Amino acid sequence: MKTSIATVCLSGSLVEKLHASAAAGFDGVEIFEPDLIAGDHSPEEIRALARRLGLTLDLYQPLRDLEGVDEATFTDNLRRAAATFATAQRLGIQTVLVCSNVATATVDSDEVSAGQLRRIGDVAQSYGVRIAFEALAWGRFIDDYRRAWRVVELADHPAVGVCLDSFHVLSLGHDPAQITEIPADKIFYLQLADAPALTMDVLSWSRHHRLFPGEGAFDLTRFVSCVLAAGYDGPLSLEVFNDTFRQTDPRHTAVHALRSLTWLQDKVAAADPEGWRPDLTTLAAAKPPTAFDFVELKAEDTSEVEVLLGQLGFTMRGRHRTKPVSLWSAGDARIVLNEQQARDRVPHVAAVGLQVPDAGATTARAAQLMAPVAYRRTYASEQPFGAAVAPDGTEFYWIPEAHGAPEWVAEFDGGIPETEPCGVRAIDHANLTQPWQTAEDTVLFLRSVFGLTPDAPAEVPGPTGLVRSQVMRTEDGAIRIPLNVAPHVLDHSGLAQHVAFTCSDVVGLARRAADRGLAFLPVSDNYYDYLRGRFGLGTDEVAELKELNLLYDRSPDGHFVHFYTRTVGSVFFEFVQRFGHYDGYGTDNAPVRLAAQRVAAGTVRP
Amino acid sequence: MKTSIATVCLSGSLVEKLHASAAAGFDGVEIFEPDLIAGDHSPEEIRALARRLGLTLDLYQPLRDLEGVDEATFTDNLRRAAATFATAQRLGIQTVLVCSNVATATVDSDEVSAGQLRRIGDVAQSYGVRIAFEALAWGRFIDDYRRAWRVVELADHPAVGVCLDSFHVLSLGHDPAQITEIPADKIFYLQLADAPALTMDVLSWSRHHRLFPGEGAFDLTRFVSCVLAAGYDGPLSLEVFNDTFRQTDPRHTAVHALRSLTWLQDKVAAADPEGWRPDLTTLAAAKPPTAFDFVELKAEDTSEVEVLLGQLGFTMRGRHRTKPVSLWSAGDARIVLNEQQARDRVPHVAAVGLQVPDAGATTARAAQLMAPVAYRRTYASEQPFGAAVAPDGTEFYWIPEAHGAPEWVAEFDGGIPETEPCGVRAIDHANLTQPWQTAEDTVLFLRSVFGLTPDAPAEVPGPTGLVRSQVMRTEDGAIRIPLNVAPHVLDHSGLAQHVAFTCSDVVGLARRAADRGLAFLPVSDNYYDYLRGRFGLGTDEVAELKELNLLYDRSPDGHFVHFYTRTVGSVFFEFVQRFGHYDGYGTDNAPVRLAAQRVAAGTVRP
Repeated sequence: MKTSIATVCLSGSLVEKLHASAAAGFDGVEIFEPDLIAGDHSPEEIRALARRLGLTLDLYQPLRDLEGVDEATFTDNLRRAAATFATAQRLGIQTVLVCSNVATATVDSDEVSAGQLRRIGDVAQSYGVRIAFEALAWGRFIDDYRRAWRVVELADHPAVGVCLDSFHVLSLGHDPAQITEIPADKIFYLQLADAPALTMDVLSWSRHHRLFPGEGAFDLTRFVSCVLAAGYDGPLSLEVFNDTFRQTDPRHTAVHALRSLTWLQDKVAAADPEGWRPDLTTLAAAKPPTAFDFVELKAEDTSEVEVLLGQLGFTMRGRHRTKPVSLWSAGDARIVLNEQQARDRVPHVAAVGLQVPDAGATTARAAQLMAPVAYRRTYASEQPFGAAVAPDGTEFYWIPEAHGAPEWVAEFDGGIPETEPCGVRAIDHANLTQPWQTAEDTVLFLRSVFGLTPDAPAEVPGPTGLVRSQVMRTEDGAIRIPLNVAPHVLDHSGLAQHVAFTCSDVVGLARRAADRGLAFLPVSDNYYDYLRGRFGLGTDEVAELKELNLLYDRSPDGHFVHFYTRTVGSVFFEFVQRFGHYDGYGTDNAPVRLAAQRVAAGTVRP
Repeated sequence: MKTSIATVCLSGSLVEKLHASAAAGFDGVEIFEPDLIAGDHSPEEIRALARRLGLTLDLYQPLRDLEGVDEATFTDNLRRAAATFATAQRLGIQTVLVCSNVATATVDSDEVSAGQLRRIGDVAQSYGVRIAFEALAWGRFIDDYRRAWRVVELADHPAVGVCLDSFHVLSLGHDPAQITEIPADKIFYLQLADAPALTMDVLSWSRHHRLFPGEGAFDLTRFVSCVLAAGYDGPLSLEVFNDTFRQTDPRHTAVHALRSLTWLQDKVAAADPEGWRPDLTTLAAAKPPTAFDFVELKAEDTSEVEVLLGQLGFTMRGRHRTKPVSLWSAGDARIVLNEQQARDRVPHVAAVGLQVPDAGATTARAAQLMAPVAYRRTYASEQPFGAAVAPDGTEFYWIPEAHGAPEWVAEFDGGIPETEPCGVRAIDHANLTQPWQTAEDTVLFLRSVFGLTPDAPAEVPGPTGLVRSQVMRTEDGAIRIPLNVAPHVLDHSGLAQHVAFTCSDVVGLARRAADRGLAFLPVSDNYYDYLRGRFGLGTDEVAELKELNLLYDRSPDGHFVHFYTRTVGSVFFEFVQRFGHYDGYGTDNAPVRLAAQRVAAGTVRP
């Protein structure tokens, strides 16, 4: 279907917004009036620029506080509306958004509102435009799309229809089912936004916290399905007010936005088994990944990481035949250490490899979702990877599911065979820290390309601010990628990334690592006193945890024992053992870790 | 009264928090358990450190989810409580906070909760501690201080009392009057927090948005008056969970925090005409300022500012006898240009001068509120100023009210007398941009030291993000200081400061300035098309506004015409004329200004 985006979703000047929307591949835009007013370009220039860029101008918005008023006020409002219609005409825009009255409504009557909309419709018609009437969730009298439709039906004017906005409908918990009762030719416009589940006044929620589809908690698939069932065939248009997107590069945000609409269309198509909407864009059906294939750490010099891995029982499996890259493994956990093109870089997570049921389908899907391709030089004898760059710059690679070691392991020579298992089973999770600019975008990337789903977000109090954490995962837990966002006083690099490994015997592994001289992240004695009281652990049990700097957590489903290494560069390792059906990450222990890391980094006096 | 602060208000390690609290002058602290657990220092070390620093340890907190549960759960909870009491005992803390059950309560019964609190009291007593029971606003069954007190009364145990927290009482709109019915010896603790008026779930509101007294919308004077009327004489303790304070220098936040408690005590004392609480700290009774005395701009080279001021009709009134400082004036508006100690600095607002009814009282008050003294080298023949540094680094000076030019003007020689009035009357407002770290602190500074009051906050959409604006003012509008906070992607310097002057004839002034070659901030033609429609202005009127790049606003009380100069360094000037009783700042025009400034700065392609 035709895609569109409101200019209010993007930062910059109106001209910058148009360029960004066109470059991303949108078919059209909605012009937010303040963007036009603040800019130097005349409506005629904007119209011509849009034509050159191949963008349609789909909506001019908003006209506020027009109807439900006394006659004197209405006369003034008609004049105001006429000026807006004149501008829309100059822009060549045929549809103008009229919001239900918030500020000045005094008459709570469908008949009065309908009569006034009819008269506005007459004026609109005289300028060759039509009005799309929208119930704002905080409208004074009209806050429900069903009432807006009733008023439009009463107005019974060819230039008066409704605009449906998912936020206003779903934020109030209104059932979108009755949308199907609205005649298609009376749905003049459709605006889409997702939002997180928040309990706050709906105006602030709407103005600051909207998200692109796939990033929030709204059931947009059902909403859009209802609108399409009504017969609507206008643009799917995004209108997302969001404090972050207002600040970030509009070229980046526009791609991100279009990705969300592509994903949503595929979801809607999948929910329509009869396929009677062939104009919906659909995606290659890629199943979610089934295992971590590897994590790649990059640095000019990876030897500090090698020391750690050796102490932890990993084995160096060889050096790559053609690149300054080495492979370390333990059980099914593979760590690739890469020293190419890493001048002046300290160790950091550069790439995550995943095994997927159908690599070709994932590759096709990533391309359809405009994921930038990551480049890996590949020679004839080497296994090809699917590859994409996530919004935060991390590269993701995927290969077909392997039973045992994947083919590419054979590209590494000269290593030591793994003689005895060290107790590491596999990669449990890869924690990627996010700058605040990319947190939402990365959620959508992992959800749309790989089919990961978000857990409920968490907040961790650190010594210098709250860290937001959002886990993206597969249902079975084979893939878990926590995304951590640093408090904004820290630069992004102030928060370390980490790779966690699941073990069959974390205590034994810790003990052997201690014997080999591993520097654990030291945990305070107070923590162990607390543990004893918190969980009623026995003295011996606590003594063993304390000796090895192990941490402990318990849920109704099981318990969890884990430890951290010191940080090397901007990355550290965690080793975990899940007992029973424990499904978390020891989040309650994260403040202890953050405080200990701050001490270890020397940024606090002991 | 004794002052205290919860360690959760401050960033850093527990040791850093104790040092910061002591340095600011607090009498005691509440230890937030996670701060102890995450730290290396044993309870005994913390106890000894507090003693060395002269801090009492007033509360250990919190114990959660203890009462209102079945017997099996309660047995486990008792063990958990005992461990916490043991730690409190090691810390030498006599009072432990117990929050009403949020997560595990299954029994909605005062009798059951009271019985369980009684048994917890027995255990507490055996460790030499007592428990202060607090109704959390989101407690499962007990969310009202009146019910918490009923339960404590039923428990009837010497080691069981209540803790009152202003947030939990006032956020739910509960009347604090019944606090006076609680016997003083059963109020074991008092926690204070302010908060902005927000409509959101009370848990998020509490965890992220609490403020120090004087910065939010709660009536803390009445709340504390009720608690004192009950006879409470324990510490006034701050417990403020705030995302910003979690990130900022704890030494700075601690001073800021104590200032808020000092201000609050004075307010409470003033509300108690009988003065039966002589232990409340009171402040010198300084009346609010009555006029702007001057604004000082500082730069290595101020000549660009001088060109602007000349074009705007200001007169150079002379050079200071002893310093590289010059004075420009127009009507009662005085601008001091200062080139000393300004190497490499572009023009910026360095100081604001105010005229006050009783300069001595303001000086005494500022000292009592721990405002750092600003230093101005003063010679025998020069007028002395009161002086303080605001949290954002701006210096504030004050002198007694003057009729006509203040005495210090005579320190400037060699200037040109003002021959004919240029139409400028006085300084209308001085807009100070704030880094996000100091926004709340500056509100409290201006409120507590000068008695300014906050207007409702506003948000202005700029091309690269939302700008938050909070006007601090006197009731009569003689002093207006808008505080603008940049979106966090911009560094603080990306948002310009400005000084606005009120004029008797802004159109005439603009015309004369244009004749003298003033470079106005250019305003888009689209804005004038919009104005015509928005307000129904006549064609000639709009043409005149457009010719001179004037902006227009209207409210029910009057209207407003204003214009902006281009920015010089990090400051620009605004000239305004208020018609009727217009009391605003043309905030709706601010997006137009921000967009035009971005174009003028060359950061956007035209």
